[in-house]
Amino acid sequence: MQKSDLLDWLKEGNISIPAVLLSEYKRMNLSEQELVLLLHVQYFMDKGNYFPTPAELAGRMTANSLECSQILRSLIQKGFIEIIEGNSPEGIRFEKYSLQPMQEKLVERFLSSKKQDQAQVRRTEET
Amino acid sequence: MQKSDLLDWLKEGNISIPAVLLSEYKRMNLSEQELVLLLHVQYFMDKGNYFPTPAELAGRMTANSLECSQILRSLIQKGFIEIIEGNSPEGIRFEKYSLQPMQEKLVERFLSSKKQDQAQVRRTEET
Amino acid sequence: MQKSDLLDWLKEGNISIPAVLLSEYKRMNLSEQELVLLLHVQYFMDKGNYFPTPAELAGRMTANSLECSQILRSLIQKGFIEIIEGNSPEGIRFEKYSLQPMQEKLVERFLSSKKQDQAQVRRTEET
Amino acid sequence: MQKSDLLDWLKEGNISIPAVLLSEYKRMNLSEQELVLLLHVQYFMDKGNYFPTPAELAGRMTANSLECSQILRSLIQKGFIEIIEGNSPEGIRFEKYSLQPMQEKLVERFLSSKKQDQAQVRRTEET
Repeated sequence: MQKSDLLDWLKEGNISIPAVLLSEYKRMNLSEQELVLLLHVQYFMDKGNYFPTPAELAGRMTANSLECSQILRSLIQKGFIEIIEGNSPEGIRFEKYSLQPMQEKLVERFLSSKKQDQAQVRRTEET
Repeated sequence: MQKSDLLDWLKEGNISIPAVLLSEYKRMNLSEQELVLLLHVQYFMDKGNYFPTPAELAGRMTANSLECSQILRSLIQKGFIEIIEGNSPEGIRFEKYSLQPMQEKLVERFLSSKKQDQAQVRRTEET
Repeated sequence: MQKSDLLDWLKEGNISIPAVLLSEYKRMNLSEQELVLLLHVQYFMDKGNYFPTPAELAGRMTANSLECSQILRSLIQKGFIEIIEGNSPEGIRFEKYSLQPMQEKLVERFLSSKKQDQAQVRRTEET
Repeated sequence: MQKSDLLDWLKEGNISIPAVLLSEYKRMNLSEQELVLLLHVQYFMDKGNYFPTPAELAGRMTANSLECSQILRSLIQKGFIEIIEGNSPEGIRFEKYSLQPMQEKLVERFLSSKKQDQAQVRRTEET
């Protein structure tokens, strides 16, 4: 092992996810496999690849390309991912994923969990 | 929505995972479900609960208690988690999980992936 | 360099700070030295030391113990840190720092920055 | 306060720094101000601005443009930042910062700190 190994590790960096996502994905009707696929999409986007293919995702997951393609479609239908189309400054057509729908669901979920907790507290205090 | 909501969100914090874990878990023979269970264990430990029960894990996962118990046992057998026994300063017996075996596997995996890459490069250069 | 070095690096872990803190500390009237001292306090608390001494902070900073002590006092006066007193379950008196005041200021600062931005946008649209 | 505020907070994200950087910057001869300037440069680069100007840095720091310019020059001389020149695919000349020299220093510092610790342990065991 050489010094360069530690440097390579450092360059790989870290992925930071909101603790609320880990505690609420289940109640957002996401499976563990769907959650991890979303993390992979996030990772690819952080690295500058805004439209990873099912094959690229399958290279990192225990699912094959066809399954990754089906999970992606299902996440779009359930409203967690969105495909955005546009034109680059050079006039080239592009498609890219957006995780904003997932973030909106997460914020809504967090706020409604809190309301339930407060209602619970009030009921407990009243009795 | 109130200011306190944003403060609560801030307090929940973030979970930071090495990018290498996300890129290598598949080659470490971990499924997405096993990976996420390990993240939940990490989360509980960060919050001071060093021995979360299968029921506590099931409360956050799509698996039930029995299934969580089976995944835990399998992760121990495959050498990703370890149970450490000890006595507290007050003489109370305790059990806690350690994720060090998983970290060791991750480091080994990272170093052997790099060696393969370098061998690949050499082969390409020789031809 | 040995495999254990990379494992030690991994165990040291990461410190995750809200990007908003980095963009707003200046407008919260914090200097870079005060900001970094707050990060050190956060780090010590994450490691289970809830009341780091000026000497412990000085061991990691370019300021000496006396200066760290003065910065701490100033941060308490300006309302960024609080000292909380209590009794442990074993009846031992303790003091610990709380960074909640800083988090509250950060949330307020973020919300008022947003309001200013929106007012700015409205003024620009009206003219 | 509206739901969109929490969403905006979420989008701002987090900055993740190696805990080793926080514990070792002092011994790497970096002041708190220099450390924070490096974090700002990192932040700008993460957002796609690879060559932030002294004025952009001063907008977020307690130092003015001239001072930021001096700190940058000093960090280049001390070997923490590097300016890389190149040509974009469209043939446009660009300059960008690289923090790799700082990462290399950090790795070296970490490894030499460990060696000192081990030497210390050996001396203690021998006596």
